[in-house]
Amino acid sequence: MPKQVDHHERRESIAHALWRIVDQQGWTRATMREVAREAGVSLGQLQHYFSSRAAMLAFAMEFASEQSSLRVRRALEPLGQTPHPREVLRVVVTEWLPLRPDSRATSRMNAAYVLEAMHDPLLREQVSVGLREGRAQVEGLIRQAMSDGQIRSECDPIVETDRVLALTGLAPLLDLNVIEPDAALAAVEEHLDRLFEARP
Amino acid sequence: MPKQVDHHERRESIAHALWRIVDQQGWTRATMREVAREAGVSLGQLQHYFSSRAAMLAFAMEFASEQSSLRVRRALEPLGQTPHPREVLRVVVTEWLPLRPDSRATSRMNAAYVLEAMHDPLLREQVSVGLREGRAQVEGLIRQAMSDGQIRSECDPIVETDRVLALTGLAPLLDLNVIEPDAALAAVEEHLDRLFEARP
Repeated sequence: MPKQVDHHERRESIAHALWRIVDQQGWTRATMREVAREAGVSLGQLQHYFSSRAAMLAFAMEFASEQSSLRVRRALEPLGQTPHPREVLRVVVTEWLPLRPDSRATSRMNAAYVLEAMHDPLLREQVSVGLREGRAQVEGLIRQAMSDGQIRSECDPIVETDRVLALTGLAPLLDLNVIEPDAALAAVEEHLDRLFEARP
Repeated sequence: MPKQVDHHERRESIAHALWRIVDQQGWTRATMREVAREAGVSLGQLQHYFSSRAAMLAFAMEFASEQSSLRVRRALEPLGQTPHPREVLRVVVTEWLPLRPDSRATSRMNAAYVLEAMHDPLLREQVSVGLREGRAQVEGLIRQAMSDGQIRSECDPIVETDRVLALTGLAPLLDLNVIEPDAALAAVEEHLDRLFEARP
């Protein structure tokens, strides 16, 4: 029987190879040739799956985003059927930050992705859709918490959503050791405390 | 008389060429060859000034950072000798965001710089020093405002400093048109309102 190649598995193992290179050596080093070597395939095989560096990055980010959603769902499981929205936001925001090896790799990939997307129409479309979806989920949580009386009704849900998204600004500070993980977590907790604070 | 070459001017004009390429075409396109062409010098001349792409980026960011400080000082001038710390923070934070062509170019350069710095020891040192200096200035403003009674004394100045720095997370959202400039400014104003709010 001829050897069966699972194409999906192959693409995922290439994505993993790209993550490792971006995490350990940086995006500049992630050429098609380097990724093929790291994934243990020939350059020709790699090009069969991905026509360009941008196409490879697009797939790797989609896959990273799925893995990230999976980690969020797993972290929410112990919190029961209807976790408090504050807890959900804490899990979501900390997943964005490079606080563990898996989210660090995703965060570094994401920085490369955003930078490339500014000048690549295909990546730009994909990253914008992803960010808008993430933004809509956060806004949904905040609006729900407002209607449930957990966030004060005078808040502007749009402004508060953007302020929560802005916490991604802690990622480069962490990655460059300007702040420590504990400081980033304290900033996130304080932000959520203020968002959910009861009116005196 | 032989033609005098002003080396400082030449380096600055190369930095400007790099900014234009990063702003309009992206960091990936900013090869030594492309920058030489954009700056109107030969590759050899460029290499006389900068031994590598990283060295060129390091100089261009230092120069960008000086220009940025100059814009902040100019924006503070109309506010008099002792501007309110809330106004100072507003000027500083909005300068970090890609809201005008000059700060957009700086913001895009900065994204490339941070990404490269993660895996380049020289750039990493430079960017960390720069970020720590910026962080110390913000912390100084916040501590001063606390001792002057403009920020509540129960605040943790470290946490509040990190939360102000986190507002840089709005930059990619602006650059990818996920949020509009007005929304970013509203998020900054709300953040500062909450930071400086009086105890009821």
